[in-house]
Parts: sequence; structure tokens; C-alpha cells
Amino acid sequence: MALDTFVPVAPGSDFPLENLPFGVFSRRRQSGGDPSCCCGRVGVALGEHVVDLGTLSEAGAFTGPMLSGADCFRKGSLNEFMALGYAAWQEARTTLTRLLSSAEGVLRDDRTLQEKILIPQSEVTMHLPARIGDYTDFYASKEHATNVGTIFRGKDNALQPNWCHLPVAYHGRASSIVPSGTDVKRPRGQTLKPGSTQPHFVPSAVVDFELEMGAFVGPGNQLGSPIPIESAKEHIFGIVLLNDWSARDIQKWEYVPLGPFNGKNWATTVSPWVVTLDALEPFECPAPVQEPPVLPYLREQHRTTYDVQLEVQIQPRDSSEAAAVSASNLRHLYWTFPQMVAHHTSSGCNLRPGDLLGTGTISCEDGPGSLLELSWAGQRQIAFECGGSTHNRCYLMDGDTVILKGHCAGPNGRRIGFGECRGRVLPDDSQC
Amino acid sequence: MALDTFVPVAPGSDFPLENLPFGVFSRRRQSGGDPSCCCGRVGVALGEHVVDLGTLSEAGAFTGPMLSGADCFRKGSLNEFMALGYAAWQEARTTLTRLLSSAEGVLRDDRTLQEKILIPQSEVTMHLPARIGDYTDFYASKEHATNVGTIFRGKDNALQPNWCHLPVAYHGRASSIVPSGTDVKRPRGQTLKPGSTQPHFVPSAVVDFELEMGAFVGPGNQLGSPIPIESAKEHIFGIVLLNDWSARDIQKWEYVPLGPFNGKNWATTVSPWVVTLDALEPFECPAPVQEPPVLPYLREQHRTTYDVQLEVQIQPRDSSEAAAVSASNLRHLYWTFPQMVAHHTSSGCNLRPGDLLGTGTISCEDGPGSLLELSWAGQRQIAFECGGSTHNRCYLMDGDTVILKGHCAGPNGRRIGFGECRGRVLPDDSQC
Repeated sequence: MALDTFVPVAPGSDFPLENLPFGVFSRRRQSGGDPSCCCGRVGVALGEHVVDLGTLSEAGAFTGPMLSGADCFRKGSLNEFMALGYAAWQEARTTLTRLLSSAEGVLRDDRTLQEKILIPQSEVTMHLPARIGDYTDFYASKEHATNVGTIFRGKDNALQPNWCHLPVAYHGRASSIVPSGTDVKRPRGQTLKPGSTQPHFVPSAVVDFELEMGAFVGPGNQLGSPIPIESAKEHIFGIVLLNDWSARDIQKWEYVPLGPFNGKNWATTVSPWVVTLDALEPFECPAPVQEPPVLPYLREQHRTTYDVQLEVQIQPRDSSEAAAVSASNLRHLYWTFPQMVAHHTSSGCNLRPGDLLGTGTISCEDGPGSLLELSWAGQRQIAFECGGSTHNRCYLMDGDTVILKGHCAGPNGRRIGFGECRGRVLPDDSQC
Repeated sequence: MALDTFVPVAPGSDFPLENLPFGVFSRRRQSGGDPSCCCGRVGVALGEHVVDLGTLSEAGAFTGPMLSGADCFRKGSLNEFMALGYAAWQEARTTLTRLLSSAEGVLRDDRTLQEKILIPQSEVTMHLPARIGDYTDFYASKEHATNVGTIFRGKDNALQPNWCHLPVAYHGRASSIVPSGTDVKRPRGQTLKPGSTQPHFVPSAVVDFELEMGAFVGPGNQLGSPIPIESAKEHIFGIVLLNDWSARDIQKWEYVPLGPFNGKNWATTVSPWVVTLDALEPFECPAPVQEPPVLPYLREQHRTTYDVQLEVQIQPRDSSEAAAVSASNLRHLYWTFPQMVAHHTSSGCNLRPGDLLGTGTISCEDGPGSLLELSWAGQRQIAFECGGSTHNRCYLMDGDTVILKGHCAGPNGRRIGFGECRGRVLPDDSQC
């Protein structure tokens, strides 16, 4: 049953009381600075408002054993709160659900406090949710790996021999992760013209998005102490949308034998609101059956994922509208977040609070999560209607804004939403 | 000519007054804690002592325009000092060279201050020099890439087509970088038995070292603003020894198509003293000629590197001695640090103060920098004499301590040394 709050929440909002995603914000009039900088304080989204947890905490609203007196909400990142672990996350959720409900008078009847802690989202700048120590990107969608493998190696050798046995991953670049709304610049790099053996250094001609989700790590582990699959879920604080921008021509030339580097490290965009697993729990669903069976350290007793509907939209330069170009769903992902945590740490590698685990492109049968797949490596254009005209794309054009959206659909139009992950491609400004 | 200091420096010390490498230390009696934690304060090494720059700074010793009043030395990491850039580094070096010289009375004649700021190295714990935001590992040695390529693909296809055109690299794991002296644990992981198609999950049977050096980034760049090759050197604060521990069997099975992951992310060891480029300047020498010529964004007007003699030693479990098993030299490295910086940022990727750039294994004609090469993928054992007995190795055994050393040899036995980068392999302690 829907929970009632005294804060206005429009029907179909991404952020009803059941969601309460965490993020880091600053009031726009106080700070017009660099949104990639982790200043600001912790809040949760509710309808069109941000609830300022820093101020709420100063007002003594958190009285439970984990959060009473803690100053993790008066910070410019969620790292400290993430580090506290599930008991603290649950305590915050319980406290906030009660305080913000229509049935509870403490905040409902205190207009002065309400004015302090309820801030319209239109008046805030959202920052990165965490100081991201390390960013790992997986390759967890079987449909995506199959599509890419088919494009590059043909249908018969699409999946590499290791793919069904372990969640393949690479270490990504943490420094260039930016919050939704940040423009990204078309990168330059070495590419090989078709038929040539001599590379040239030019702006990438094939800039792509990758529709992904990312999990922020909670407590994590000490170096040398793997996290067993049974407790891996406890180390996932919550989930965001993630666009792993890719320059396919740079990537193609550079990636042998050590993997993607400059083709990927120029930008990764994340949505600012981290949706907790507790909020997603009503949308838990079975994860795909794994065949062949995985090794015991990756075997889950209850193998579940979440039914998150995903969409990619493109808004061309001169258009005021965006159009959907693909749709997918997290539920199709072959490898789950707990499996990623268990595999990542199985070597002894340590995860730290605030680390980010990307899923890799989430494709499904009818919904490829990248233009590489949609255009089948540039062999066919996709067409979409937008602002009264037809647009054709193999890859992204300068001025294109890519918008990722995601939500879980509940009964009566209620939903748990992720907001959006948005970024615009600026032209390369170099003389090269 | 050798500089005289009133602090005792033994002949052949790695740390004469000409060196003054920067590091982060804490007094052992004050903090017996986790050495990977960035607590402590900034110092320079001089002979067998650490000079405490935090206390020296509090005493008003830094009076120049960049460092007067700055509190970058009263920190548990070098990041703030690294961010200040070359003018500040030079000012610190000039000030310290003067203060510590025999000719200058201010510190020489102040026994009270001397007692405060000169601490025997035997009484301190060395920490990581910086909070490392991102760690990138290159593959910059032509001899190493050729050896590895020959082992895996045969002599005719040893170097991949891209290798001579760009410094190949991958993003490494920052969380598992530890300071010299930290034990590392043999990792577990998925490996494939010869002839099998089914992986199993076992402790790695082929644990290796990689003899590398690492450069710490100074000011760095904003996202979207590449660092041109001409000014790339200004962004290098200094250099350390680096051992990029590798589990070859895990790496071999996992690395297609996205590169090394769990085979490498379980530990990387660095030496604690960062030697500045100013200290290395007398040992500058021409870098290898690059043929074919590189693209303009990688072309250096004065293409130089440094003559750093490198050595790998192994100390077996029950031995009190270590024996050299290989020797190499930084001067053979095909790609220079400025080229790495220019290439890394050419996509717009941002480097931040304290980021670490590893060279990749530094092999030379007679000196392979890894056991993979020394044993030719386990096909032949190497033998070394140690503590009166002969030891044979294809790969590292539990209890082996690997010690990397490096120095530049000057006239009259004077040298600029890097100290050591040491780590012992502990057995896997799991039931798997």
C-alpha cells in the first residue's frame, strides 16, 4: 500500500516516500561551483523536494543507536554513511519514513523546521554521491557480450570461453566520473582509417553511450579478505544509472592486449540519486538461470535481481524534445551485483566505501544498450522522430544530449524511479 | 661536486643531500597502526634519518613565496604539496639544501631543533606517499612486450600493431596499493588446467613480481583539457619503485577481452621515498630512438630519460639473505613519463595530484623484469645462491620476499638511491 506523506508528491513521481534515494546537494545560491566537486550535504529526494538530512540531523531527528550524534549527513559525500553498513541505512530509512509520513506530527506540524529542511530540487545543484576511490566496470549482460562478440568475431565465436564462468570486468577511471548534467567533450585519440596500418590522431568519429547501472559499495573489505557470496549483498549501498561514454574507434585501436583505456576514460556520467536495495525490494525478481552452473564461490542460494525498466533517449542539438531510442531492463543481466562483489574480492582485492561497480552495457533481446549494437557497428542508421523532424544516427553527433532513465513500476501508477542520467556531447575544440 | 651536510651520511647511502626524496612517515612509538593508512606527516630522507618537514615548517623554516605559511607538510599525504607544482617543489629543495648544509648555521647550531626534526629511520613507519586517486599501469618496455608477445603468440607476432604508436596502458586498482614492507597474500582465482575447458577456483600457482617504476602526478589537468607533450614533465612530481604483483594463471584466463583484473588487483607495492626529477637531473640520458616516428602529440623535442640501475632480489623463507635474480635499467624504457602523461590526457582524461603512473615491467636485453620472462612461462627454472644453498624458481613460493632496488651511480661512489620496495608472499589461508 502506498505510504502517505505530508510533502506534495505528484502521481507518477520517481520519488515517492517509498523510495527515499540518497544524494549530495548544495543550494544553488550558496554554491555555483563545479558540480563534480564533492561539496554540499546529504539529502533524500521526495517528490520535487530534497530533504536536507544534515539540517535534520542537527535538529536531533535521528535518535537511533547508529545515527544519533553521527555527523555523516553533514558531509559533501555519502562515503561515511555508506561505510556504516546496513543497520545504519535501515535506521535512516525507518526514521525518515516515520518523520515524513502524514501520520506523524513532529515535522508535519513544524513549519519552521519544514522550511529549513525541504528544498525544491529546482534550487539545488546535485553532486557526485560519493568520493569514488575505484571504479570497476563489468561486462555482465549476455546479450551485450553476444552482440559485440558477433560484430567483431562472428556469430560462432561471439562469447569468449571465460564469459559464462566469471563476471568479466576491467578497472575504469575514477577521476572522470561526473554527475548528471555535466557536458562531456568529444575526445581525440589515435584511430585507424579502414584499410590503413598507420594511425592518425583525430577527434573520435564514433562516440557512443552505454546504458548501464552502477552499484555503490558500502562497508567493503580489508585487503586479503574476500567477501563471500552469502554476505555480498550487505556491501551494496544502492544503485544509480550510469552512462559509460565510449569512443569506439579509439577503443578498437588501443585495446589489445590490455583492454579499454582512452576510449573510455574521458567521461562516465552517473545519476545523482542512489536508490537503496530496501527501496527496490518490492521489485525483486528471479535472475536469469546460469548454464553452465557457476563455481561455488559465485553460487547464490536465492538468485534474484530487480525489475528496473530502462530507457535511453536522445535530444538532438536544436530540439527541445528527446526521443527514446532503446529500452532494456536490469532483470536480464546475467551476473548479479552480489556475484560481482564476490568475484571482485575473491582475489583478496579490497573494496572501499564509495567504490562504484558498473554493470557494463545492459542489452536485452529487443533493446541494445549502445549505438554500436543499434547501428550494428555503423552499418545501419537508426531513425527517430523528435520535434517534428526525423533524425538519423549511427553514432552521437555534437550537441546530442543522452538521457538515461529507469524506474520500477508498481501498482496504481506508483513507481520507484532513478531520476535521470543526462549528458551532452560538446564538439572537440582542438586544432589537430 | 658532492654537497656537505652536518647530518651524518654514510658513503654509498641512497640518500645524500643531493637526493632529498619526499615521503610520509609516522614515529613508530606514536602510531603502530596500519601502514597503508595515510596518517603521519611529510619528511625527506637524509642518510639514516628522516627530516620532519612538518615540524620544520612549524618552526618557520620555509620562508619562500610558495611555502611560507603553507601547511602541506603537516599532512598525512603528499597530495597538497604535489598539487602546488614545480615552483613549490624547487623552493622546498632549495630551502632544505641550504638548511641542511654544513655551511649554514641556523639548523647546524640549533641542537634543540635538530633533535625535534631529525628522526632515525629505524624509529619511523613509512606510509603510502599519497592518497592515490587513480593508478594507471603502462606497458612501456619494448623488451618486455616483445618477450611476453613471443611467449604467447610466437616471435613473428610478438608486438601488437599498436605498440610502437602509443604507450599501451590499462587502469589499475588503487585500493590495493601498499607501501614497501607490507606482506601480500597469494590470491585465489579461476584458472584453467592445461588441456581443460572447465576452470577451477584455487590459489594461484604462478605468482610473479613485475619490476617497475612509478611516477606520481603533480598538478594534473582539468577534465577535457589535455596536457601537451611540451609541458608534460611539469606534471611529474617524482618517481618510486613499484612491484605490480601478478597471478599469471588468473590473468591468463580472465583477461580476454577487457584486460587484467583479478590477476593484478590483489596487491601493488611501492617504495616510500619519492625521488624528484630535480634529484635525477644529473643522470638524465637519451631515451631510445623511436622508429617508426610517433605522432606529433607524442613527439618530444628533447627526448630524455634517466639512468636508473634496477635490481630484483629474492629472499627465500628461511634465508637471512637475499640474492639478485635480475637487473635492468629505466633508460631502456621505450616510452617516457612525459609521453605517458600526454597520451593519457590526450582523450581529455584528467590526472589529479597523487595519481600514479606505472611503467609496466622494465625488461632489457639481459635483464627480464618478471619471472614469466626469466622462466619463459615456467619452461625453465632459474637458480640462485642464497644463504649457502641453491634455490630454484619458476615462480614465487610462499615465504619469498621480493626486494626491488634502484639507484643512479655518480662519481666517487655518490649515488641517488630509491631505497627499496619490499614485500613477502604469504600463503593463501583459505579452504578451497
